[in-house]
Amino acid sequence: MLLNETIVALATPSGSGAVAIIRVSGPEAIEFTAPVFQARSKVSLQDQKSHTLQLGNIVDNKRIIDESLVSVFHGKRSYTGEPTVEISCHGSPFIQQEIINLMLKQGCRAAKPGEFTMRAFLNGKMDLSQAEAVADLVASDNEAAHKLAMQQMRGGFATEIQQLREELLNFASLIELELDFSEEDVEFANRDQFQELIVRIQKTLNKLIDSFAVGNVIKKGIPVAIVGEPNVGKSTLLNALLNEDRAIVSEIAGTTRDSIEDEIAIGGIGFRFIDTAGIRETTDEIEGLGIKKTFEKIEKSQIALCIIPLTPEGGIPEGTKNGVEKIKNRFPDKPLLIIVNKIDQLSDKQITSIKTNISPFTTDHSTLQFISAKDKTGIQELQEKLLEFVNTGALRNNDTIVTNSRHYDSLLKAQAEINTVQEGLNEGLTGDLLAIDIRQALHYFGEITGQVSNDEILGNIFANFCIGK
Amino acid sequence: MLLNETIVALATPSGSGAVAIIRVSGPEAIEFTAPVFQARSKVSLQDQKSHTLQLGNIVDNKRIIDESLVSVFHGKRSYTGEPTVEISCHGSPFIQQEIINLMLKQGCRAAKPGEFTMRAFLNGKMDLSQAEAVADLVASDNEAAHKLAMQQMRGGFATEIQQLREELLNFASLIELELDFSEEDVEFANRDQFQELIVRIQKTLNKLIDSFAVGNVIKKGIPVAIVGEPNVGKSTLLNALLNEDRAIVSEIAGTTRDSIEDEIAIGGIGFRFIDTAGIRETTDEIEGLGIKKTFEKIEKSQIALCIIPLTPEGGIPEGTKNGVEKIKNRFPDKPLLIIVNKIDQLSDKQITSIKTNISPFTTDHSTLQFISAKDKTGIQELQEKLLEFVNTGALRNNDTIVTNSRHYDSLLKAQAEINTVQEGLNEGLTGDLLAIDIRQALHYFGEITGQVSNDEILGNIFANFCIGK
Repeated sequence: MLLNETIVALATPSGSGAVAIIRVSGPEAIEFTAPVFQARSKVSLQDQKSHTLQLGNIVDNKRIIDESLVSVFHGKRSYTGEPTVEISCHGSPFIQQEIINLMLKQGCRAAKPGEFTMRAFLNGKMDLSQAEAVADLVASDNEAAHKLAMQQMRGGFATEIQQLREELLNFASLIELELDFSEEDVEFANRDQFQELIVRIQKTLNKLIDSFAVGNVIKKGIPVAIVGEPNVGKSTLLNALLNEDRAIVSEIAGTTRDSIEDEIAIGGIGFRFIDTAGIRETTDEIEGLGIKKTFEKIEKSQIALCIIPLTPEGGIPEGTKNGVEKIKNRFPDKPLLIIVNKIDQLSDKQITSIKTNISPFTTDHSTLQFISAKDKTGIQELQEKLLEFVNTGALRNNDTIVTNSRHYDSLLKAQAEINTVQEGLNEGLTGDLLAIDIRQALHYFGEITGQVSNDEILGNIFANFCIGK
Repeated sequence: MLLNETIVALATPSGSGAVAIIRVSGPEAIEFTAPVFQARSKVSLQDQKSHTLQLGNIVDNKRIIDESLVSVFHGKRSYTGEPTVEISCHGSPFIQQEIINLMLKQGCRAAKPGEFTMRAFLNGKMDLSQAEAVADLVASDNEAAHKLAMQQMRGGFATEIQQLREELLNFASLIELELDFSEEDVEFANRDQFQELIVRIQKTLNKLIDSFAVGNVIKKGIPVAIVGEPNVGKSTLLNALLNEDRAIVSEIAGTTRDSIEDEIAIGGIGFRFIDTAGIRETTDEIEGLGIKKTFEKIEKSQIALCIIPLTPEGGIPEGTKNGVEKIKNRFPDKPLLIIVNKIDQLSDKQITSIKTNISPFTTDHSTLQFISAKDKTGIQELQEKLLEFVNTGALRNNDTIVTNSRHYDSLLKAQAEINTVQEGLNEGLTGDLLAIDIRQALHYFGEITGQVSNDEILGNIFANFCIGK
């Protein structure tokens, strides 16, 4: 990963569109592009001012590949912190490829995933956690995930960690200074102040570590198990939820062939509805579904959503009732939304009978919800119930949230070291031994912001980026 | 389609990528964007110079949607010929949607397909045939199609048509002038010169009309029928062709479920290999394939490619031999490439026997080609044979080629009118009657370049564009 190489990649999504951008970054970005660009204004690329665009032809000798807008960014003022040229060409995959090939011929190297952002980090344009947030930002597909990524890109908790790290570093220096004067038995580092700092660090770490569960859920969408037999109206319900909000996020095939996930954004929060195809193959009632599979699904979810069928007379099949009871016994604390569809076809008597026969858990979020997917009755209430679960959690307040598992890992390791430091302090450990643990904690803090990094860490981080970023 | 509306659309391919561009064009492009853009430099969008970029935040009130590069193009100097703003944001579909929604809230209207290019046409930035070439350029997926689109975008045959039209217009005016002096029996328009012009126009029209067949083939890929029973090695052959060239264009599902098309670029030319799934369901030999279906496929293609199987002893099955003979009898002039795979496993004697038993047509392009998909033997020869077919045609010379069926249609109509004019001239028709036919021919010429257009024609043309172009 040499910074003296000039790299090239397609920056826009692959495929056909009106416009595509080829990004060129590195010391010779302008020199490599200039010979293949014939500006209409005759102003050469070398003379083009930073942050300006020029129309002209991209040419391979005499062959015109495309008419393109070319923008130039000088040195430190670019995204990467090095000279950058962006070629905005017609969005045909053929033209994109031709221009990339041309730039490779000119001496560029094909960029690796995330290499532009890695250069931005290496050139001091952003810290490591901000660089990581860029990937999250590109991947964000709902408002909450987007908000988290923006927060992190603008500093996020890294600033907090950075401050604590500096205070800790200060103490470490003082303690290490004591070592130089060990024969004189002085204490430069005030042990009470140090205790206080350690407690403050522990508090911050605990808060951040706890936030990871929430952060992860926001990033990936809140898992909601849908249980119920086949054809009970799962897709009808999902469609009804969708039509209210019109914001489908994606329909993704799960990691296994058996599992289908629908992701829907409700009120800016992503919900991941997990259905298991395997369940479809079994018989007609919840109990018959294989209660084991149902349990597994609910186990993995934050909310369970159970659609129950009705008998032709509007009653609840006995098997369904038993199934719901089993779920309640197994997961007494899990929010459960029991859905009865087609309320428009039910009499008041039937509704009362259903309410008597089936009841949700006694937790706050659990509810029996009558809906009519046809008339959209009850759909909004259902959405509100789902959001309520989220809003009573950490999402409501504007707390800092950790979403990156690498950060989580470093925080856990830092926490362990800080706890060791505290034990050492309590046991009156000598400065030289304390210093070792403090240095280790500092190391883990530094891993988050990138003050401590190595090629392997960087390689792992940026390998998850898309090419062109 | 009012030009006083400001329109917005995603200009880059949909999906996730490093960067996406939201394009805003219209009289209030800058005014609508300025309130939602906080430039880091504090220079407002209104004060930003044309063809420059600025970094800043896209904000919805206090909520930051993204950090974006915003470029401004003033009035006539933009692609559309009207004020344009391009927002280069992070390429998350969520962010793209949020920014588009924000711009809609600001007063923009969602752009219709091709509306940016239509405005470029309406604002006099390009003629209609150039505008149409933009869509072809974006869709071009091989070198030949790309070259044609570039040629057309840079003027193409429209310039030629334009010149002839002006000469014709001149004569029309003179003849119409004669009508004003009809009592005096003068001839302002020299009939001999007019005859000469008509002949010149006819020549040009014939050339352009003839080029359409070639142009259409280049644009869509040259159709090649692959005939042969299932599992005879069609995909092996396609892969071998591909690996030589590594330029797969696309694998498209045909218009009907029964038909599969593979498109491969060889030497910059697109070839469309047509297979028909229906054929797979039948028995084992060409004759058994249903010769009717095979005939239909060959009928639609410019080249037939027949892969023949061998018996375990290396001979040709009797049915295959009969099948090939039937194809030859039915299509004596169609280039036929007969492919025998696994030459590496054949003895010289077997090869001689095959050559005796099966022979291609006697046309120049037909050949019996032995290959080994495994060793890549004969693959390059096969590619050369395919290219030879193309290169002996109109593609070799740099003639102007018509690819657009709308242009073709107008050219045919203009041709008919010009022929009528000539007949009239020969019959000594009076000026007033001649003038009517000339005006009609002028009308069809004008349709190509856009001097004659109406909302319906424009609507049809631009409906085929992608949104954002």
